Amino acid sequence: MNEVVMEQARRAKKASRKLASLSSDTKNSALLAMADAVISKQSEIMESNCMDVTAGKERGLAGALMDRLALNEKRIAAMAEGLRQIAALPDPVGQIMDGSRRPNGLEIQRVRVPFGVIGIIYESRPNVTADAAGLCIKSGNAVILRGGSEAIHSNTTLARILGSVAEQHGLPEFSIQLIESTDREAALTLMQAEGLVDLLMPRGGESLKKTVMANAKMPVLTSLGGNCHTYVDDSADLKMSEEISFNAKVSRPSTCNAMETLLVHNSNAANLLPKLLTRLADAGVEIRGCDRTRALYPSAMIATELDWETEYLAMILAVKVVDSLDEAIDHITQYGSGHSETIVTENYSASEKFTQEIDAACVYVNASTRFTDGFEFGLGAEVGISTQKLHARGPIGLTELTTYKSIIHGNGQIRV
Amino acid sequence: MNEVVMEQARRAKKASRKLASLSSDTKNSALLAMADAVISKQSEIMESNCMDVTAGKERGLAGALMDRLALNEKRIAAMAEGLRQIAALPDPVGQIMDGSRRPNGLEIQRVRVPFGVIGIIYESRPNVTADAAGLCIKSGNAVILRGGSEAIHSNTTLARILGSVAEQHGLPEFSIQLIESTDREAALTLMQAEGLVDLLMPRGGESLKKTVMANAKMPVLTSLGGNCHTYVDDSADLKMSEEISFNAKVSRPSTCNAMETLLVHNSNAANLLPKLLTRLADAGVEIRGCDRTRALYPSAMIATELDWETEYLAMILAVKVVDSLDEAIDHITQYGSGHSETIVTENYSASEKFTQEIDAACVYVNASTRFTDGFEFGLGAEVGISTQKLHARGPIGLTELTTYKSIIHGNGQIRV
Repeated sequence: MNEVVMEQARRAKKASRKLASLSSDTKNSALLAMADAVISKQSEIMESNCMDVTAGKERGLAGALMDRLALNEKRIAAMAEGLRQIAALPDPVGQIMDGSRRPNGLEIQRVRVPFGVIGIIYESRPNVTADAAGLCIKSGNAVILRGGSEAIHSNTTLARILGSVAEQHGLPEFSIQLIESTDREAALTLMQAEGLVDLLMPRGGESLKKTVMANAKMPVLTSLGGNCHTYVDDSADLKMSEEISFNAKVSRPSTCNAMETLLVHNSNAANLLPKLLTRLADAGVEIRGCDRTRALYPSAMIATELDWETEYLAMILAVKVVDSLDEAIDHITQYGSGHSETIVTENYSASEKFTQEIDAACVYVNASTRFTDGFEFGLGAEVGISTQKLHARGPIGLTELTTYKSIIHGNGQIRV
Repeated sequence: MNEVVMEQARRAKKASRKLASLSSDTKNSALLAMADAVISKQSEIMESNCMDVTAGKERGLAGALMDRLALNEKRIAAMAEGLRQIAALPDPVGQIMDGSRRPNGLEIQRVRVPFGVIGIIYESRPNVTADAAGLCIKSGNAVILRGGSEAIHSNTTLARILGSVAEQHGLPEFSIQLIESTDREAALTLMQAEGLVDLLMPRGGESLKKTVMANAKMPVLTSLGGNCHTYVDDSADLKMSEEISFNAKVSRPSTCNAMETLLVHNSNAANLLPKLLTRLADAGVEIRGCDRTRALYPSAMIATELDWETEYLAMILAVKVVDSLDEAIDHITQYGSGHSETIVTENYSASEKFTQEIDAACVYVNASTRFTDGFEFGLGAEVGISTQKLHARGPIGLTELTTYKSIIHGNGQIRV
């Protein structure tokens, strides 16, 4: 147990009580002031970031990590802009979900309320500090941030600036706190602070998420991987099939909503695959196919069981020819991760069967899986994408950072 | 690992795919046929129950457990009636929660769908077998039941009857299964069947629930205890205060929504407490009070720290005089379990402050906490009451046995 972290959790819990009742106006003006402060304190932030970057170089951090770590004027401006956008979003707190008047006169409302204290554990990108703090504040939650050791100076400075500006603009003290210790025990203490931290959100790589899920004593909300499929049906429009498949694979292959396996009905294989796979290969995609795919496109490598299971997050595509919609659904049920799946079809019954039988967060007809995203869904903010079934499934918006309570107004009712 | 249980889980998963698409009509006629079968196979059920009752007597089961175990004509009729009521409830599956057309023409709907496979682990009452099976089937979920060893014969017979009737009426085979092994390993296997069982619901005592929460690899939905308070404000109507307090304590003290601690503003203590506490004591309630309470009602025992923390579930009441609404809110925040809390007041601002600041599933103004209940809230079925914040909070209805997915209809959209 790290006593400093426990004390932070207790302070956050206390702050959360006041935060829950704040008006949207107060929260929004604090968010706007936080955005201004990120700009006006830019040199201070850059100074801290330089210390992280220097330390990273000394430790020999990989190029991609160094790139994510380094701040510059543009990235700081984007951080401020992100906070302004959060200020502009509708406030989920206080929303009345539903309500009824019971026969005995009791008036029951279900009202959205903050969780209380949200813990965010993340990796090297310092912009998450501002983003996560903004989302939690907007949804009325106190936040405890735990960033990676690579970005500790940047994060400490950012959290101090954001926290003090927030307090100056009407938010309770300790609404935004950062865990300054970078050791494992501090993170574990946060995961074990049951009763004080109401929700944990890990943001980063799969191993971070798994550690949090294995150790957290409180609910966890996170986005797991996506092994997404495109199925080209018997009746599909071939031009549309090609465009959707190309987009789903190539437009941003490192994201969880990118296609990893293409399934094609045998009746369309000969007309579609040679042209589509050539185009994909020309764009740099490595093709791994089943026997029938390789008969039509001989330069494909042999796909093995492992390929059906793998979320490449890279310019690699597994391709399989199937004999029916049922076989496609069975394949997706066996190997899919429940993220995003799409069918290309002109057949009404096939579209209905696919959307009903596929068990995934987002099921598409005639569109690219790449649309699974908070902004594309109109949620405004990008909190993440959930493949779990409890509480939040698919794109997570601000609303999912709230729970609800029932408020019941009576005039003396007793239960008989 | 118990291989039989793993195989049951795999079969349930397969059944769940078909169950998810069944029409409400099919599910309802199966439920009605299940109700009829419980009546027509009554003698078979009673025979099995006799074996359990005989075994229970031999093992020296306590009277209360024996009472919960024993079936009779009336209890079997109630079981059938429960299934008929579930058939009459609205089907949550397929409900469109919300939807939008995006600027690019994508039509996004969020639709309620079953979880898939629900595991229910419960104790000696055999009626839970019918009730849990009915609720899961209605919400489109396959169910794996694990009852207590005391009721194993009754449960096995009931599950066999219900399962075969369900199958005869259009439900997929293995929609309803019971784990026949009563050893700990079988239960643990169910809790570890990640990827096959989507949700676990323990129903029974606190130790069962804690075991499940500590061991389950999948999400758990359960009802924890209620340390509920009634706060009589400065401005409260004294007659209403007396009636609500009496009802909240005495009408059914063994339930989680019963009052455990009464908080009274000092300005009302002298007018309310002597009369109310005498009435409660006359009804058999043991009073444990703070010093100021005991000054007004000397026969009260001394309340200690432990009393503020305890959910008695019995005819015992802790009483404390407080100096302000804030002190009452602080007390409830410190000791409450987030279940049900009520304020009795005629003051508008006090009612607003209380409903906003109290962090509980159900927050009442001028009504007894005893109303926290699925039926009283108009949900129809009694699945339980959740004090967790994720997914379901307060009374759990059939709707909470579902998750949702986004179904997106397009006409060739790709992401730019």
